[in-house]
Amino acid sequence: MSSPTASSAATSGPPRPDPLDPVFAMHLGGKLDVVPRSPLRGPDDLSLAYTPGVAEVCRAIAVDPTLLDVYTGRGNTVAVLTDGTAVLGLGDIGPGAAMPVMEGKALLLRHFAGINGVPLCVDTTDVDLIVDLAAALAPTFGGINLEDISAPRCFEIERRLQERVDLPVFHDDQHGTAVVTLAALLNGAKVVGRSVGSLRVVVSGAGAAGVAIAKFLMTAGVADVVVCDRRGAIGRDRADLPPHKRELAELTNPRGVTGGIGAALAGADVFVGVSGGTVAEEHVAAMAEGSMIFAMANPDPEVHPGVARRHAAIIATGRSDFPNQINNVLAFPGIFRGALDARASRITESMKVAAAQAIAGCVREPTPDRVVPSVFDPAVVTAVATAVAAAARAEGVARN
Amino acid sequence: MSSPTASSAATSGPPRPDPLDPVFAMHLGGKLDVVPRSPLRGPDDLSLAYTPGVAEVCRAIAVDPTLLDVYTGRGNTVAVLTDGTAVLGLGDIGPGAAMPVMEGKALLLRHFAGINGVPLCVDTTDVDLIVDLAAALAPTFGGINLEDISAPRCFEIERRLQERVDLPVFHDDQHGTAVVTLAALLNGAKVVGRSVGSLRVVVSGAGAAGVAIAKFLMTAGVADVVVCDRRGAIGRDRADLPPHKRELAELTNPRGVTGGIGAALAGADVFVGVSGGTVAEEHVAAMAEGSMIFAMANPDPEVHPGVARRHAAIIATGRSDFPNQINNVLAFPGIFRGALDARASRITESMKVAAAQAIAGCVREPTPDRVVPSVFDPAVVTAVATAVAAAARAEGVARN
Repeated sequence: MSSPTASSAATSGPPRPDPLDPVFAMHLGGKLDVVPRSPLRGPDDLSLAYTPGVAEVCRAIAVDPTLLDVYTGRGNTVAVLTDGTAVLGLGDIGPGAAMPVMEGKALLLRHFAGINGVPLCVDTTDVDLIVDLAAALAPTFGGINLEDISAPRCFEIERRLQERVDLPVFHDDQHGTAVVTLAALLNGAKVVGRSVGSLRVVVSGAGAAGVAIAKFLMTAGVADVVVCDRRGAIGRDRADLPPHKRELAELTNPRGVTGGIGAALAGADVFVGVSGGTVAEEHVAAMAEGSMIFAMANPDPEVHPGVARRHAAIIATGRSDFPNQINNVLAFPGIFRGALDARASRITESMKVAAAQAIAGCVREPTPDRVVPSVFDPAVVTAVATAVAAAARAEGVARN
Repeated sequence: MSSPTASSAATSGPPRPDPLDPVFAMHLGGKLDVVPRSPLRGPDDLSLAYTPGVAEVCRAIAVDPTLLDVYTGRGNTVAVLTDGTAVLGLGDIGPGAAMPVMEGKALLLRHFAGINGVPLCVDTTDVDLIVDLAAALAPTFGGINLEDISAPRCFEIERRLQERVDLPVFHDDQHGTAVVTLAALLNGAKVVGRSVGSLRVVVSGAGAAGVAIAKFLMTAGVADVVVCDRRGAIGRDRADLPPHKRELAELTNPRGVTGGIGAALAGADVFVGVSGGTVAEEHVAAMAEGSMIFAMANPDPEVHPGVARRHAAIIATGRSDFPNQINNVLAFPGIFRGALDARASRITESMKVAAAQAIAGCVREPTPDRVVPSVFDPAVVTAVATAVAAAARAEGVARN
């Protein structure tokens, strides 16, 4: 809506946010502090923590590099790295504007899992430089959380970086979302009395989250997954696909569904929305009996819970004001905690499946309104970390 | 010395440090934590600090990038970046083994100046990549402290990086040392009743610190500086000089001194040692009356204070157990505090001179045993920060 003062606002610069607004007040000066773990009380402490004492520790690490994770914070420190190209639902707003999200992520790593999160907002979208840069920082971090990087670049960055470093590399927008989606699906299947493998799943959205969810659900045993992008169901008939969608066309859509989201949803058991946009009620109505609708777009779910209620047995969203909030914070703190505890060299599929099972297991008696635990359930992070570390050890990627 | 147990030690790996040793106990798990600036008490706080609230802050910064330094911690955060090629006196021990020093530096930034220091140890010695990497991180940091990078690469990295970013870039091994040396010289000159400009200064060592000290003292008005490397006085007669020393040969040594450190010290007023090694007492004895000896090698000063006392009026070292400790911690916390407060785009010569004058000014009545303040004098950081910010504003490099 244009305002009569628009032109004067334009000449006087953008409107200033109100520092008394609770959101801006909370962000003033940033959300993180880097502080000493023990106090520096005087010259004696200084000579232990800094010169001359510190030289002994440096020498010890030079002789035995495994001591790096013992006598520095590296083994408990995770980079939260973005180029700002796909921030929340805001898109390519740049690395500086992405910083509040990265600080938030670091804050959650500390709050839920006692991990030092370090935001790294990089002013480049060059895949080679991002990979080189992150790989060069391997002596600094015990893990690298990639965040809010646009598809398909995020796939290449994650793959190439993981090839270069013996550290967990985890693009949360992909895998965190996929893990919590599987957790909800595991409990949802229990509620409706189905096996996960028998479900027909439609994923709406073929960005970072949609691609990762589709692949991960198949890893977890779901045989019938159809992914839809804006042009409809992705399948071998589509001639317009970039490489990452061509891969999906090979892996998914076993029945060769063609057409729009309506065609895909006809008879489907599960809708997973990570696309934004709206799905017409008639398509939702055509889903199978006892269906599940996970409409995760924020702030506007693809299917409003009020509409979904008329057709589905289980409804989840990304929002905190409806039941069943599918929120990555259920996954990434515990996944990194477990990976760091095990000193894992990567985060494998079995570690992610273990995380999803652990999250699902935190709900003792799943009901339609409770297929995932609360994000503030303190049992979640421990359960996830324990399961992830055990899976890492079982798979032989742990060094602890 | 070989030991009878050497071969069994070799097969059982390097000796483990004793975790009960106070130095190693202080370093267990590292020296830093990244923590929330305000507590996360529940869902309401989560919705302010993270989604959905955080999106408003991201949007505001996208519209007005100057808000990055208001609503994130970026403007109070300094990278402490090393490649581990010149760590303390230990040399090229690598980026991992350098981490304890970087954590120590970050701890000092917090303790003395309330700054978030973030260690970045990079596993590359490639100048291009280090510059690209640090420049790409400009949206993350309000300043970049380069640390323990070998000469002459450190000169090129600092110069090229500063050309790329509008942030203070400061190689502390060069400039921090130079600033504190000038502070000591200002008060020393006062004690012996000389003008700084009239002093004959010999700098022993042509690495990062030696080069920076020589240039900086000349900036501050010292006309007669002779730098010696292992082969002797650097001058136009030397045919063996790499570019950074050729530059020194042009700038320094106005009397064309040739020969070893002995020739350079004959009649000199000031010895500045940043080389390690030992200077023979006969050369010290040949210095002028009322001379100053700043023997800063750690832990073994180039001239032991017991020897220096027989010939010099003022003696300073890098050690805390003798009077006049020339320690960078007198400079870098206040310099970064002032630069960040002024949102300076770089750290200029006049800002560094202002810092040296402020440090010197913290000693009301300089005496031979007190030409620099104590590193724990709480007045120093404020005095330095205020002077540096004022100099930045006077020179037009401040944005606050």
